[in-house]
Amino acid sequence: MVNDARVTVLAGGVGGAKLAHGMELAGADLTVVVNTADDVELHGLAISPDLDTVTYTLAGLADDVRGWGLAGETYATLEAMRRLGEDTWFTLGDKDLATHVVRTARLRAGATLTEVTAQITGSLGVRARLLPMTDDLVATVVETADGPLGFQEYFVARQHRDEVLGLTFVGAEQASPAPGVLDAVSGAGLLVVAPSNPFLSIVPVLAVPGVREALAYSTARRVAVSPIIGGRALKGPAASVLASLGHDVSALGVARLYVGLVDVMCIDEADRDLAPAIEALGLEVLVTDTVMGGAEGRERLARELLATASA
Amino acid sequence: MVNDARVTVLAGGVGGAKLAHGMELAGADLTVVVNTADDVELHGLAISPDLDTVTYTLAGLADDVRGWGLAGETYATLEAMRRLGEDTWFTLGDKDLATHVVRTARLRAGATLTEVTAQITGSLGVRARLLPMTDDLVATVVETADGPLGFQEYFVARQHRDEVLGLTFVGAEQASPAPGVLDAVSGAGLLVVAPSNPFLSIVPVLAVPGVREALAYSTARRVAVSPIIGGRALKGPAASVLASLGHDVSALGVARLYVGLVDVMCIDEADRDLAPAIEALGLEVLVTDTVMGGAEGRERLARELLATASA
Repeated sequence: MVNDARVTVLAGGVGGAKLAHGMELAGADLTVVVNTADDVELHGLAISPDLDTVTYTLAGLADDVRGWGLAGETYATLEAMRRLGEDTWFTLGDKDLATHVVRTARLRAGATLTEVTAQITGSLGVRARLLPMTDDLVATVVETADGPLGFQEYFVARQHRDEVLGLTFVGAEQASPAPGVLDAVSGAGLLVVAPSNPFLSIVPVLAVPGVREALAYSTARRVAVSPIIGGRALKGPAASVLASLGHDVSALGVARLYVGLVDVMCIDEADRDLAPAIEALGLEVLVTDTVMGGAEGRERLARELLATASA
Repeated sequence: MVNDARVTVLAGGVGGAKLAHGMELAGADLTVVVNTADDVELHGLAISPDLDTVTYTLAGLADDVRGWGLAGETYATLEAMRRLGEDTWFTLGDKDLATHVVRTARLRAGATLTEVTAQITGSLGVRARLLPMTDDLVATVVETADGPLGFQEYFVARQHRDEVLGLTFVGAEQASPAPGVLDAVSGAGLLVVAPSNPFLSIVPVLAVPGVREALAYSTARRVAVSPIIGGRALKGPAASVLASLGHDVSALGVARLYVGLVDVMCIDEADRDLAPAIEALGLEVLVTDTVMGGAEGRERLARELLATASA
């Protein structure tokens, strides 16, 4: 059942979090379906970086200056763990660790990731509904010249310097969408594919059986926001991954990935000259400022996307 | 095989840690067998308070002013956990949490508590060998008028205000001494029962099958230090537990518990008048200052105990 007032965002980390925040500021009845293929267990703790980035951003706790993690973070526990001989290549702040400790304890006690996420977001005052794409384990494996790497090994430890030769989402075929995900994709008034890394953040969500089909056949108005502006990504390896996997490093290259899945491609003013080529793919084009500088920029972009739904 | 140069201390928390520290300062080849019946799992983390107190004290990291935990401790993670809805009645500092996270991860990966303890103490530069009394789970349950309480619930949450009507060491009968424990008890030149709570710290160690017998038949010189001075405990509920379980709240009451297990009872100068009654139990008596004020006090007491072995 479609509820016109409902907005669903498919999101990875920072770009999705900013857009979700804009949607909240714009007053949307918001559900965010979040990539969990970057999740990792370190020091025995269940870490869900994208869920946490969206959670912290919506709770107003994110470190906007640094672009990740929590504001005012300290590192006493990590320093003590290093002293105890742990390999601490993955930075974990003291406050952030609380999230992982609590999540791990509740998962081990039998709760699902969906349930734990609802508890955490509720405790932090997040109004939006955050859904992991699945409660099952899915892990992005990055093929490189040095062999396969776990996602965080590729992304954090090796600072996404390796050329990505291929991607595998281990466990995806056996995974089920988390409760509420398919309804959120097919039943929203507006569905937004966030300006997240297409291959590393959005494709894993679509790899969970049923999600791609729900998006393809959704009666929602569907908009994707390009994470590529002027041939570059604002953040992270989106540009290099597109290139190494043989795609145009441009909003047009991104648009080609989303043909059949969205109705509207939102691109930055810097890419205005790509609009005709994107329209030739059968997509409508919304040209605007997509950089989302500050809360106003986030809300303004969200309102422009909301306007496409009622257009 | 008895090695005269080897010293083994049976210990609970603070009193045992101070005496162990004194033994290190006095140059002893030291093994500490530590009570683990106070261990507790909280927030999914394996917490071993007595092992940690001894470890931190021997590593020079303990907060001697407060009397427990680590010096310079902060509480960012616990505060964030409270915000996430966790019940944080058990205070866990950021540095202390690192110990619990590391221990839990290594236990879940298949290491024994003995192995994990060796790793942690080694990382922190502790020279002495710390042995948990057992690698199995043993849990002190405190019978009270309000029913049975877990040890930390009794000790921390209810601040040991309940009258102790009885004690059960759940799992003790099925437990095995950790590797090295029996040899440390029977093979040392000097064995010291620390001035720890007799019923809450020492009795659980002796409840592990084989340990009491190893102590009773040890050819080591065996000394117990009374935790009761002038009818009071320096710290904790030792006095009230002795009273509620029907024992004299005095060094004599403690000595009666250790008859057949030790050769020498070390009592404070304040209790000098109890010496004849303790000697009447068949024990030698060492009268000295047992308060262990500062590092000098710890080392002085340790040297006096060492002297009884060569006496």
